[in-house]
Amino acid sequence: MSLLALTWDDAAGPDGRGALRLLDQTLLPLTTEYLVVERVDDLVGAIERLAVRGAPATPSAGAMGVVVAMDEAAREGWDEARLAAEVRRVRDARPTAVNLAWGVDRVAPLVPQGRDAVLAAARQLAAEDEAANRELSRLAADWLLARVDRPRLRVLTHCNAGVLATSAWGTALGVVRELHARGRLEFVYADETRPLLQGARLTAWELADEGIPHAVQVDGAAASTVLRGMVDCAVVGADRIAANGDVANKVGTLGVGLACREAGIPLLVAAPWSTVDLATPEGATIEIEERPGEEVVEFAGTRTAPFASPGYNPAFDVTPARFVAAVATERGVLEPAAGQRMDGVLTGS
Amino acid sequence: MSLLALTWDDAAGPDGRGALRLLDQTLLPLTTEYLVVERVDDLVGAIERLAVRGAPATPSAGAMGVVVAMDEAAREGWDEARLAAEVRRVRDARPTAVNLAWGVDRVAPLVPQGRDAVLAAARQLAAEDEAANRELSRLAADWLLARVDRPRLRVLTHCNAGVLATSAWGTALGVVRELHARGRLEFVYADETRPLLQGARLTAWELADEGIPHAVQVDGAAASTVLRGMVDCAVVGADRIAANGDVANKVGTLGVGLACREAGIPLLVAAPWSTVDLATPEGATIEIEERPGEEVVEFAGTRTAPFASPGYNPAFDVTPARFVAAVATERGVLEPAAGQRMDGVLTGS
Repeated sequence: MSLLALTWDDAAGPDGRGALRLLDQTLLPLTTEYLVVERVDDLVGAIERLAVRGAPATPSAGAMGVVVAMDEAAREGWDEARLAAEVRRVRDARPTAVNLAWGVDRVAPLVPQGRDAVLAAARQLAAEDEAANRELSRLAADWLLARVDRPRLRVLTHCNAGVLATSAWGTALGVVRELHARGRLEFVYADETRPLLQGARLTAWELADEGIPHAVQVDGAAASTVLRGMVDCAVVGADRIAANGDVANKVGTLGVGLACREAGIPLLVAAPWSTVDLATPEGATIEIEERPGEEVVEFAGTRTAPFASPGYNPAFDVTPARFVAAVATERGVLEPAAGQRMDGVLTGS
Repeated sequence: MSLLALTWDDAAGPDGRGALRLLDQTLLPLTTEYLVVERVDDLVGAIERLAVRGAPATPSAGAMGVVVAMDEAAREGWDEARLAAEVRRVRDARPTAVNLAWGVDRVAPLVPQGRDAVLAAARQLAAEDEAANRELSRLAADWLLARVDRPRLRVLTHCNAGVLATSAWGTALGVVRELHARGRLEFVYADETRPLLQGARLTAWELADEGIPHAVQVDGAAASTVLRGMVDCAVVGADRIAANGDVANKVGTLGVGLACREAGIPLLVAAPWSTVDLATPEGATIEIEERPGEEVVEFAGTRTAPFASPGYNPAFDVTPARFVAAVATERGVLEPAAGQRMDGVLTGS
């Protein structure tokens, strides 16, 4: 797979030291354009407007962002305090994404050893992400195939947890790829995922690229697709997973979870272990990021609601552990709905 | 209220006999434009592309459509068989909307008495719709206020069941208007209602027009808004209600119902009795209309998904009776989730 959402491009940058190269996901599916990020401002802006996105991709973006900050510091003559402040800006660019802070924190201690050490660590982190994604996809596919008695599975997914959301391979779409590679995938229903349409723009683009049979549906159709027996499971990614198994993910995931529980089919959450935040005891304590209301009431420059009508735009929702049949990470599959907690403690429910 | 979705305009038409005047709802909220319908082709097209829509409005549209057909027959010299065939085309323009056929069937027997008799009957039907909507809104408001212990209610609604969906006053939005008029309404969350955005375009437009505090949210946010305790009830319209209390309504309603049941707040369905189809024993027998996939994967002429990605576009879903706390019609309030059937039989559940 040559396509990657982000890489460190040694040939780019203003001073021959390379630069972070990001696929601008806001322009997909019809335009493929890369951003060359040389300044912290540009990276923070790209993260804020979701040009780079996806919880598993953000550690790599954050780690490489430290290199961006160091190179900018060298060019601009920042002192240590300024550099530290700029690294913190990268770290805090999105409040809900614990992964972003995790990626920054992983490499920031290496700053005294120089930018090449930091860059090597950032690249190592991306490689580990890919390996984790491939492993969790194998484990998730094993888990699903042991529980669904069909030759080939019909899968519903929400948002984009694919190559475009990770360093490589994908999480939820990694599971889909794994099933497809095993000849055990029949069809994928991709929720379009309003307001930013990551499902229609990104997931469908990845599925089309792989030649996987699929259709795009509005988010409101998910419950009906599930309850009419048209899918065997739902597979989604996660933004953050609390210790008790509650899952924060793109708004709309909760509705998918409610429908799956009602239909008696599994909702499987596929995410690297870095998404698990044992310091978060339960979902109720997760701050729900509210994004600009204009994302809801405008589309491609066209106002869809009256100017007097504000948009309410929570970016995420929290699916309670009791609706989450399985969380697949590279460390194994846990079953929150059956009472397994992410910290290994059983609730006995 | 001077705004009406459809009226018979005596001053319009090619031959001084008047014509059906429809507000073209596909152009709202930024453009207010009326269609003058003089031919069956134009009416069927307007119904198909949802320029006129809403289950309670369609009987009036269907009944006035018979007048359109009669006037066209007079102009074009159609024989009786041709006229009957054209009336059937109006009747069958939307498969899921039992109301459309009901409206046509109500006035068609008067055809031998001449077009003025048919027109008078069609106008009477519209007047009865408004009276029914006002009555069911009073009954629904009484029901809600007896069950929710708050001075002013916070309401979630889906799609548009307002003035624009009815002959006048509205059903779900009629309930909202009634609560507002009594000083018992705090806030409305309007689901945008993809793919055609009836919530963002039409419901928000009506709420803004009334000065009712509201916000527009993506459909995927509804479950979270409900489960976070941000609303006291959900109020929606219906396309068809089966004898057992199952409700066919705009796709996405089922997810709202699942969330309300989980949260323990009422989902109230507000609809005129004409929406109840006792000949439909349960929701599973209702044909779900599939509309063109392009409505999902295109927006304002822009493709939102790859060209290789088809859209799956069910127009409706069916909310099982067990999620429907109340159905308010002008004949009274029934409680399907408590075991009341629409035909007055108790299931004892």
